[in-house]
Amino acid sequence: MKTSTTFVFFFFHLLLVSLANSGMKRRYHPCRHLVFYFHDVVYNGQNDANATSAIVGAPQWGNLTILADKFHFGNVVVFDDPITLDNNFHSVPVGRAQGMYLYDTKYTWTAWLGFSFVFNSTQHKGTINFIGVDPLLVKTKDIIVVGGTGDFFMHRGIATINTDAFEGEVYFRLRVDIKFYECW
Amino acid sequence: MKTSTTFVFFFFHLLLVSLANSGMKRRYHPCRHLVFYFHDVVYNGQNDANATSAIVGAPQWGNLTILADKFHFGNVVVFDDPITLDNNFHSVPVGRAQGMYLYDTKYTWTAWLGFSFVFNSTQHKGTINFIGVDPLLVKTKDIIVVGGTGDFFMHRGIATINTDAFEGEVYFRLRVDIKFYECW
Amino acid sequence: MKTSTTFVFFFFHLLLVSLANSGMKRRYHPCRHLVFYFHDVVYNGQNDANATSAIVGAPQWGNLTILADKFHFGNVVVFDDPITLDNNFHSVPVGRAQGMYLYDTKYTWTAWLGFSFVFNSTQHKGTINFIGVDPLLVKTKDIIVVGGTGDFFMHRGIATINTDAFEGEVYFRLRVDIKFYECW
Repeated sequence: MKTSTTFVFFFFHLLLVSLANSGMKRRYHPCRHLVFYFHDVVYNGQNDANATSAIVGAPQWGNLTILADKFHFGNVVVFDDPITLDNNFHSVPVGRAQGMYLYDTKYTWTAWLGFSFVFNSTQHKGTINFIGVDPLLVKTKDIIVVGGTGDFFMHRGIATINTDAFEGEVYFRLRVDIKFYECW
Repeated sequence: MKTSTTFVFFFFHLLLVSLANSGMKRRYHPCRHLVFYFHDVVYNGQNDANATSAIVGAPQWGNLTILADKFHFGNVVVFDDPITLDNNFHSVPVGRAQGMYLYDTKYTWTAWLGFSFVFNSTQHKGTINFIGVDPLLVKTKDIIVVGGTGDFFMHRGIATINTDAFEGEVYFRLRVDIKFYECW
Repeated sequence: MKTSTTFVFFFFHLLLVSLANSGMKRRYHPCRHLVFYFHDVVYNGQNDANATSAIVGAPQWGNLTILADKFHFGNVVVFDDPITLDNNFHSVPVGRAQGMYLYDTKYTWTAWLGFSFVFNSTQHKGTINFIGVDPLLVKTKDIIVVGGTGDFFMHRGIATINTDAFEGEVYFRLRVDIKFYECW
């Protein structure tokens, strides 16, 4: 009988300790994983019909139509880019990437991003919201997912972005690998 | 005695399971709920004294005083709007809504928002910080509450916004229904 | 024997209750604490070589080179400021503060901030991302840390900022006291 009680004690102790740890430790493997592409066509003064983004702010030395020197430092770009499931610009968009980026360095290509993915399809409804820094010359880089709405209610995580294609300074295609670590 | 020990075992097992579940499951009912209104008076070149916001960036085809075509695409607006508890513009403000929005679509009315509520009254002290997309023609839409300070320390949640009144393109009144799901 | 079982019962009950509490209650003492300084040199039309920031947007009544009246209301500034460990502008930078601020009040000095700290040193790798309101005349004020990447993966917290030195309207030095309350 004594043995039995002792067993119960240790058994629960084990359970409690593992429970306590599982509660405190965070899961480092994502609870949800999605990949998208989005396509940015910068307005250059002529491509009015196709452009998905435009420079809307620039410093005194800058230029609101053609792109400024000094790695475009200070240029503010507002965008509304189609999101596709594969890397084909002509695929049917599943949503829109909307927001802005700023070129924010004098010495290299770096952008500060604030934007949202907006979905309203049978597959996904809701928004995913991003903030972060994109050093353009680094192949893959992480920005943060600060939260979401709809299907992505209260989600948080990391998005790994990769400029997987570009044409001059007018077309950019970004691959976005989203890993959610808080899913609700 | 055997029975008693077995009872203890099952009793704790039940407790542990329910505890583990409660720890893992998230609460989908808000831990705090607040409603505010805020009032945006856009500078139109003449209303200098009353204006609470101004266009500060615009694309090449835009115009910093009167509003641009193409659904104002690219216009960047900075604002400092009074927050009231009811929908009366003349009520005593309980705080200020400060930040910016961008018109970010060529094809419809959509804005990307980044702003904060700043309170310093007997009722509320601190800030609530928001990010998200506002499709203006949709009656109610959700943006995210990324965090707060003071009374709203580390809070996260969802804000449902609703443009419940407007006059031309100069006055907008937004109702903001804030539901916090992480409260600390 | 009865006593022993009862003891086991109460012992576990105690454990369970304290565990439940610890799991539900949040820690109000930070899990990580860092202090940095960053240095902002605003472009004034002449200091091209040293400037770390530039006005890139302004309302109709504003001016993109010299600073506007009405407490600079509406001015949008993009920056790429060196981060140092002490308050010496000439110390070796440990990272860069990149992003933007908006002057967003007509009646006093207030800025809305959206920016990131970018580290790539032996000490820190990754980013910390901030949002918030800075009433410039208040000595210390809190903004929020919405998340991070790398060493600051999924971190959240509060940053207390303090303009601890300035020269005219060209040089600003900010002390940033970062307290993380979610550390992963």
